[in-house]
Amino acid sequence: MAFNHKHLIDITEYSADDIMAILETAVKFKEVNERRIKQVPTLKGFTVVNMFNEPSTRTRSSFEMAEKRLSAASLNFGGSSTSSVKGESLVDTVETLCSYKIDMIVVRDKHAGVPRKIADVSGVHVIDAGDGKHQHPTQALLDLYTIWQTKGRLDGLKVGVVGDIGHSRVCGSLIPALKIMGCEVTAIAPPTLLPARPEVLGVDHVSHNIDEVLPELDVVYMLRIQRERLEGAPYPSLREYNMLYGLTEKRNKLMRPDCIVCHPGPINRGVELDSFMADHPERSVILDQVYAGILTRMAALYLLLGGSEDGITA
Amino acid sequence: MAFNHKHLIDITEYSADDIMAILETAVKFKEVNERRIKQVPTLKGFTVVNMFNEPSTRTRSSFEMAEKRLSAASLNFGGSSTSSVKGESLVDTVETLCSYKIDMIVVRDKHAGVPRKIADVSGVHVIDAGDGKHQHPTQALLDLYTIWQTKGRLDGLKVGVVGDIGHSRVCGSLIPALKIMGCEVTAIAPPTLLPARPEVLGVDHVSHNIDEVLPELDVVYMLRIQRERLEGAPYPSLREYNMLYGLTEKRNKLMRPDCIVCHPGPINRGVELDSFMADHPERSVILDQVYAGILTRMAALYLLLGGSEDGITA
Amino acid sequence: MAFNHKHLIDITEYSADDIMAILETAVKFKEVNERRIKQVPTLKGFTVVNMFNEPSTRTRSSFEMAEKRLSAASLNFGGSSTSSVKGESLVDTVETLCSYKIDMIVVRDKHAGVPRKIADVSGVHVIDAGDGKHQHPTQALLDLYTIWQTKGRLDGLKVGVVGDIGHSRVCGSLIPALKIMGCEVTAIAPPTLLPARPEVLGVDHVSHNIDEVLPELDVVYMLRIQRERLEGAPYPSLREYNMLYGLTEKRNKLMRPDCIVCHPGPINRGVELDSFMADHPERSVILDQVYAGILTRMAALYLLLGGSEDGITA
Repeated sequence: MAFNHKHLIDITEYSADDIMAILETAVKFKEVNERRIKQVPTLKGFTVVNMFNEPSTRTRSSFEMAEKRLSAASLNFGGSSTSSVKGESLVDTVETLCSYKIDMIVVRDKHAGVPRKIADVSGVHVIDAGDGKHQHPTQALLDLYTIWQTKGRLDGLKVGVVGDIGHSRVCGSLIPALKIMGCEVTAIAPPTLLPARPEVLGVDHVSHNIDEVLPELDVVYMLRIQRERLEGAPYPSLREYNMLYGLTEKRNKLMRPDCIVCHPGPINRGVELDSFMADHPERSVILDQVYAGILTRMAALYLLLGGSEDGITA
Repeated sequence: MAFNHKHLIDITEYSADDIMAILETAVKFKEVNERRIKQVPTLKGFTVVNMFNEPSTRTRSSFEMAEKRLSAASLNFGGSSTSSVKGESLVDTVETLCSYKIDMIVVRDKHAGVPRKIADVSGVHVIDAGDGKHQHPTQALLDLYTIWQTKGRLDGLKVGVVGDIGHSRVCGSLIPALKIMGCEVTAIAPPTLLPARPEVLGVDHVSHNIDEVLPELDVVYMLRIQRERLEGAPYPSLREYNMLYGLTEKRNKLMRPDCIVCHPGPINRGVELDSFMADHPERSVILDQVYAGILTRMAALYLLLGGSEDGITA
Repeated sequence: MAFNHKHLIDITEYSADDIMAILETAVKFKEVNERRIKQVPTLKGFTVVNMFNEPSTRTRSSFEMAEKRLSAASLNFGGSSTSSVKGESLVDTVETLCSYKIDMIVVRDKHAGVPRKIADVSGVHVIDAGDGKHQHPTQALLDLYTIWQTKGRLDGLKVGVVGDIGHSRVCGSLIPALKIMGCEVTAIAPPTLLPARPEVLGVDHVSHNIDEVLPELDVVYMLRIQRERLEGAPYPSLREYNMLYGLTEKRNKLMRPDCIVCHPGPINRGVELDSFMADHPERSVILDQVYAGILTRMAALYLLLGGSEDGITA
């Protein structure tokens, strides 16, 4: 398969075809799993460094799992900060790692732009696993996969994204990715949680009233609320937020019968979602998103590195 | 082999036959090792999550080693607390992990009952690697294996358990397990370190005088003394404890020639055991217990998960 | 191949032939890598414990990578201190680990002599990955490999070692190793950073003036300066150190055209090296040293453990 990207850093560099190639490869890995084959030799002999310079449990363990299932050798590196390991610069650290003859760096960093910097100074493949408030492209891919598998299509879907859009790296990749795939995106948030120019991200409509918009949505994507953020003065309180924007049982009747609920996790139950919606057997696809994270990361690792097809055609 | 358990959480749910099945499987893994084959493909393709929410060096590394030798993929998860990863509930964390399509969770937690809770909310196999002061069933299995291999039998053995029985999860599994296998158990401890009703655990006799009981024992099982505990007012001091209950060289002559000494590790030399006894070439089976930990954990992982027989019949 | 060492603890126990056997094996692993084969089955079924009782990022990840590429099972153990895991003695900890039936302990410790102690009390192979201010033999091997590969020989080379020789475990192995291989070694440092008797290490000449010595050197080995050390009273300040001993662009013209620059990493740019020299395309072999670390550690693991030749002759 021809896949002409070296890195996965900026989702806007990917075309709809590129994204579909990843989603379709993820389906193949799902089919392999369903034959009860969990580990495939696809990336045997490849080395992937997981460089997480910011605490992360979910994303890191999802990548680790994806790498193990592809038989790649993984090395976990970092923990505190890219800019200083014993006072060493990020560039020196990356050049050291690359001298191990590795194939890829998966990087999470609190500073926007670090994954691009690493790609620039090193010869290896780079996946952005979240950089500052900038992007988180594999999160967008797993969201697209889940929506696509549940709704049967992406093009033309009406998606509402609710919450702290202005400070969210999830949105930094998700909203452009939804646009690339032909969705119509409504940003739903109080003014204090919106970016200055939502249209730059790709937002089609803005609303401060979830109840008005909810009846038309095919997908409602609830963002995680950082409790710390809402404790600042100009924001609504947690309780107000839940009343004004929370997806509660009361709002269920406003939603189309086939409207689904997404969330990147971990959930703040009682803030952005109540348990009725988080655990709703038809609407909630939140745990599907977690599984989709394994499958789409396997697909991205495989397509970027160009591993053998053994694992997925067998 | 028919093995009809999904979990290993409460040793009292296991019959003598179930326990013997594990011990006999452990012997097979020992025989494989003796042919210098350390890694077998038995659990290739299975994924085990080690969820240690409480610091643990020995038990965790023993499980990790057992999983590697069975070729399972392991994921280490947790470190601080089950009840809150970014404020997420234990149930949400477990459901997230299970969405990775894992096969088993090995869990250590400071709260009693967490392994059962995880089993209830998830579809995967669970092994309790120690929960609060409740149980630690794989410790009991490795103890039984060591005693069985050394003495040639379990039924009818007189076992003395010495130390802080009231606060010990080791005893929570070990004493019932000894009873299941037909041993006669004497609890030896000051009143302050005994549970309110020792007979509930399965204790046959209680003694506050080790010197009276020692001459009749086939096995003396010394518990680790938590130094912090004895610093509390109503307890004997460390020095008093060593004088009254410590297994010292002086007490050696009171013991039957074939009486063996067990300890779950790590040893407080000079408190519950002196070096003469800890390192006694005939009596001490403490390092055998460590190796038995690998073998019985391999056996439990294999029997619960139903891996291929490749590794153990080859 | 006959290789008659059980441990790699003290480089002075190795002959020039022993060292060449390691360097030549490292070349074979490099050739295997060049055929794009990164993982070989050489140590499949062997278990190596990485016991790092002192923080280490580079050395530990280099060993981990070497072990993975040889298909050994690795277990990471430790973190804080050998002398006390829950108050347990080093000897008890090592005996516990050995009861897992492991094959090797790779140990880093802040106390000199710990690797030898472990070798004495355990039956397993030991590699010293740095002990106190004593030795760091695999660093010496990777340095020799890099110099040998770049200059085509070792015998007769003039090597200058610059910096805190008195407190450096790197020098504790490197200088004797250079002497074993027939190099002529000049120690270049202020008196406060020299050992009391440099000739005991094998130093041929001592100089306090880098500019006088530089024109004759084939290799200049810059040690990392511990910033903390220079903050003490009797030492030169960082700025003075850079002026008096730093390898700066200004000093480039004093050097022979084919003189190379080594550094064990991580670099303090602007202290012992400026960027002109650290990144000099012809002179700097610092990143080659990092790769050499993987290759020579693979070679040492292989030769000490006596793995199968599958990986390196295929």
